[in-house]
Amino acid sequence: MKENLLSDITTPYDLRKLTPDQLPQVANELRNFIIDVVSQKGGHLGASLGVVELTVALHYVFNTPDDLLVWDVGHQAYGHKILTERRTNFHTNREKNGISGFPKRSESIYDTFGVGHSSTSISAALGMAIASNLKGDTTKQHIAVIGDASIASGMAFEGLNHAGVTNANLLVILNDNAIGIDPSVGALKDYLTAVKDGKNPKQNNIIKSLNFDYTGPIDGHDLPKLISELQRLQKIKGPKFLHVITTKGKGLQLAEEDQVKYHAPGKFEAKTGKIHKKNEDNLPPKFQDVFGHTLVELAKENPKIIGITPAMPTGSSMKFMMEAFPERAFDVGIAEQHAVTLAAGMATQGMVVFCNIYSTFLQRAYDQVIHDVALQDLPVIFCLDRAGLVGEDGATHHGVYDIAFLSCIPNMIIAAPCNEVELRNIMFTAQNGLEHPIAIRYPRGRGEMVNWQQPFENITIGEIKQLKKGSKVAILSTGTIENNVTKALTQIENKELFSHYHFPFIKPINKSAIEEIENNHDSIITIEDGCLIGGFGTIIAKNITTRKITNLGIPDEFIEHATVEEQQQFCGLDVNSLIKFFSSY
Amino acid sequence: MKENLLSDITTPYDLRKLTPDQLPQVANELRNFIIDVVSQKGGHLGASLGVVELTVALHYVFNTPDDLLVWDVGHQAYGHKILTERRTNFHTNREKNGISGFPKRSESIYDTFGVGHSSTSISAALGMAIASNLKGDTTKQHIAVIGDASIASGMAFEGLNHAGVTNANLLVILNDNAIGIDPSVGALKDYLTAVKDGKNPKQNNIIKSLNFDYTGPIDGHDLPKLISELQRLQKIKGPKFLHVITTKGKGLQLAEEDQVKYHAPGKFEAKTGKIHKKNEDNLPPKFQDVFGHTLVELAKENPKIIGITPAMPTGSSMKFMMEAFPERAFDVGIAEQHAVTLAAGMATQGMVVFCNIYSTFLQRAYDQVIHDVALQDLPVIFCLDRAGLVGEDGATHHGVYDIAFLSCIPNMIIAAPCNEVELRNIMFTAQNGLEHPIAIRYPRGRGEMVNWQQPFENITIGEIKQLKKGSKVAILSTGTIENNVTKALTQIENKELFSHYHFPFIKPINKSAIEEIENNHDSIITIEDGCLIGGFGTIIAKNITTRKITNLGIPDEFIEHATVEEQQQFCGLDVNSLIKFFSSY
Repeated sequence: MKENLLSDITTPYDLRKLTPDQLPQVANELRNFIIDVVSQKGGHLGASLGVVELTVALHYVFNTPDDLLVWDVGHQAYGHKILTERRTNFHTNREKNGISGFPKRSESIYDTFGVGHSSTSISAALGMAIASNLKGDTTKQHIAVIGDASIASGMAFEGLNHAGVTNANLLVILNDNAIGIDPSVGALKDYLTAVKDGKNPKQNNIIKSLNFDYTGPIDGHDLPKLISELQRLQKIKGPKFLHVITTKGKGLQLAEEDQVKYHAPGKFEAKTGKIHKKNEDNLPPKFQDVFGHTLVELAKENPKIIGITPAMPTGSSMKFMMEAFPERAFDVGIAEQHAVTLAAGMATQGMVVFCNIYSTFLQRAYDQVIHDVALQDLPVIFCLDRAGLVGEDGATHHGVYDIAFLSCIPNMIIAAPCNEVELRNIMFTAQNGLEHPIAIRYPRGRGEMVNWQQPFENITIGEIKQLKKGSKVAILSTGTIENNVTKALTQIENKELFSHYHFPFIKPINKSAIEEIENNHDSIITIEDGCLIGGFGTIIAKNITTRKITNLGIPDEFIEHATVEEQQQFCGLDVNSLIKFFSSY
Repeated sequence: MKENLLSDITTPYDLRKLTPDQLPQVANELRNFIIDVVSQKGGHLGASLGVVELTVALHYVFNTPDDLLVWDVGHQAYGHKILTERRTNFHTNREKNGISGFPKRSESIYDTFGVGHSSTSISAALGMAIASNLKGDTTKQHIAVIGDASIASGMAFEGLNHAGVTNANLLVILNDNAIGIDPSVGALKDYLTAVKDGKNPKQNNIIKSLNFDYTGPIDGHDLPKLISELQRLQKIKGPKFLHVITTKGKGLQLAEEDQVKYHAPGKFEAKTGKIHKKNEDNLPPKFQDVFGHTLVELAKENPKIIGITPAMPTGSSMKFMMEAFPERAFDVGIAEQHAVTLAAGMATQGMVVFCNIYSTFLQRAYDQVIHDVALQDLPVIFCLDRAGLVGEDGATHHGVYDIAFLSCIPNMIIAAPCNEVELRNIMFTAQNGLEHPIAIRYPRGRGEMVNWQQPFENITIGEIKQLKKGSKVAILSTGTIENNVTKALTQIENKELFSHYHFPFIKPINKSAIEEIENNHDSIITIEDGCLIGGFGTIIAKNITTRKITNLGIPDEFIEHATVEEQQQFCGLDVNSLIKFFSSY
């Protein structure tokens, strides 16, 4: 028996030269390789360990990259990366100029579709399969591997609902391990559990009802079984569904036992799985924990407070609320759209809802924020976790568009505290009778204040803070980037030139303060950790150019129903209004 | 027998004073009342006719407004409005200062949740039901009435998936008429059809699998049956589901026979249903038809072209492509998220996809535009129908945020043609090898050009057009609002002052042209039919203030993975970059 098979595998073509009985050894080596590198470098561990056998089987049976393989979310794709030309640089995973932690089209021909956000794989693979049909290629296979947490998201259902009425060569593989990042929730999860346990007394099969050829459930760690099933399905035309049961963290005992912690455990001892302890005494808290503990503090006093998280109880620290007030805290699964409208429904009944969503995932519920919350001016409190740059997760996960996409929405208040105490006070203010929706954005990770548990103070919406007075240049910052500015200002020669203002509120913007700043300075610099186009700087720029530029358009409110002509009159955009306005020059 | 029962009904309390055997007469009068008013005033007809009996039964059995009734979308809520204090002003439906065509919280206590966009009702009603539980009110009922087209949307599935694991007093009523605005599509629709026809051989029940107490299907025009079922369900705790079969347009023969046309037929003869003919000879075409016919023209030459519509084949005129090239045109149902990622999947295989979505509904697929299309720089062509103000549909339906929410997305091209020929030429240019995603926004309704079928010309991305030269004031417009400007300029005294520039492209913005405009004029006016905050005007304002203001932040591209510090360096936001920059003053 050859000692090391993995080191001879550069591409799946090499894998496919092996005999079936060599594959368990490949799987074993692949699992150890993942553990070895991730233990030293960090990254997403548990999901990839769970699909080692499935990954080997897929690349063995299917003719990748001609057959197209889409990994949902991509946390589980490390094995795939290692088997597809990236073994030798897998140690650069998630590093600058290294390989991405997620499948990425520009990185490899084997990465057929970029992922990071969940539940896109069925739609993407179906699109590929329909394209193949149109090109007359009826043998090409298109495979979506999706977890049980991801398939419960609405978008995945939309994909299944369409695929079921096509003749596309689509194979959906449900990687069912009963957990996403946190344990899966919802009625579909209960249903899948019943199927697994052989307790599906009604003999219902949701997937068959949607017109799929359903097989399963089968053991996802049984390589011969996986291979024979995949070979069988390979020959069946049309939409197919294989239900595979796996264990997240498979092969590393501690990771199997604490699947939440080992989703991305940081660095650990490869042999035992023991996580290296960091000395975290006297460090400032994570903003997430400030949110979580503050919410519990507030909820103790205000019985109307409810917490909602779409599948991120641990990551957002909503878990503290779920522990303290289980009946008032809801993990709704990967369902951002539902989370927001659920919050709106609760708000109509007078509840004070803290809906905590990562900034990047709020993009999934944009219409619900506009149509269900802001249009009805319901005072839902959005806590946008991981706003700004997020580091290693990369381009898919930055929370940098929120200021732009939220600031155009009427009735919305947008806040960006600069530190832990301000976050607490804005949360306090928001639940204290605020009559509009508010989005509070704060970054991933630790702040700068050790003594953050100060008594609550009410904050005036729209207030700004002058942090430094100077003679010539005004620096306007919003959010925690304030810290960088403050530090920089202590380290320059010409510091007397600079004023520094912190804007805890991006909307409503404090126009009179901006006017005063403009009058007292030669130039203005704005700084934010959000996109420039449509961001805080754009809003400031717009407000300091009133003398030279006039903008006409739709004002910052919802326009009631009427004819288009009447609405144009209301906005000053109709012919007569324009005549009047132009004539005034 | 009393001649007229309806005129004595102001609130549901009046309805509930009647005996069950009087209700068919109420339903009959209500149906005639709807037909009578809509025939004269226009509006959404078919959906409300289909639920007349259901509406009467709901308000008869349940204790509205204490019991909370949520209508999904709201096209079907005319009967509800008439029975709840709005009979006497129902003739003002959809008029300025009149009642809204959709349920609206600020209009009536009986309108528990504002709707307009589909598939929100389950989430909203569940939120209300959970709030009631928390308040200790376990008898209050919460009812979502949702159509078969709406329930197939992912968001509705998310609501069902959550509701099934709660003990909330939620009743979901599926109003199954096999049609939305156009006929329903998808695997769920096929499943429901099989259930209706008694042909569900697998004995599967999707709804039961999701842990609902399922009843049905029952005849939605049988009042005694409806009432007894609702009374029975009223006494059952927890999530319940009633499957009701109705006929859209019920009671008006022509409306039953052509359900698509009679969704919103305009004015017609009340007795016969015959639609009043308008003389449309020599009128300019609707932009929708320009899109539809142009797509077919292009698809004849370019075999890679595919069309996708999420449930709007008629409204968007995608139907022309579906007729001409049925294998290359897809109605995916109310599934905007899926539509966009499906398009992305097709684009990875070299297809040229025209994804036509109403501007307001693209809000439903915002994350997919960012994460699946733009981040991968896939050249999907978005045609944003009904951009700008939409008139009678009101605040829920305006397409006024698209410039703001799209312009912050890297790689996106945003175009707003000013007339039919320009729309055609931008469509031609987009499918002619464009290597980035593009959004082409155009309004609802007719343009101004009768002779629009000109030969195609390629357009240079970013080009602008000077329409008029003046001495002092530059007017910059984008999109079809150009027409109003041009008209106004012919009717003023001081017209020699004004230059007028049309910007067919909002992104990339033509910076050198703006600079030249700025240098040659005293003032600038921008005009757009999109929101001011983050819109075209904001982008122009930002570009004419470079001398006085500097903006720091995330540049207009996707930031690759690295540590946060490295990413800050890349963006010039880290401490050292700031020191360097501040020192240069």
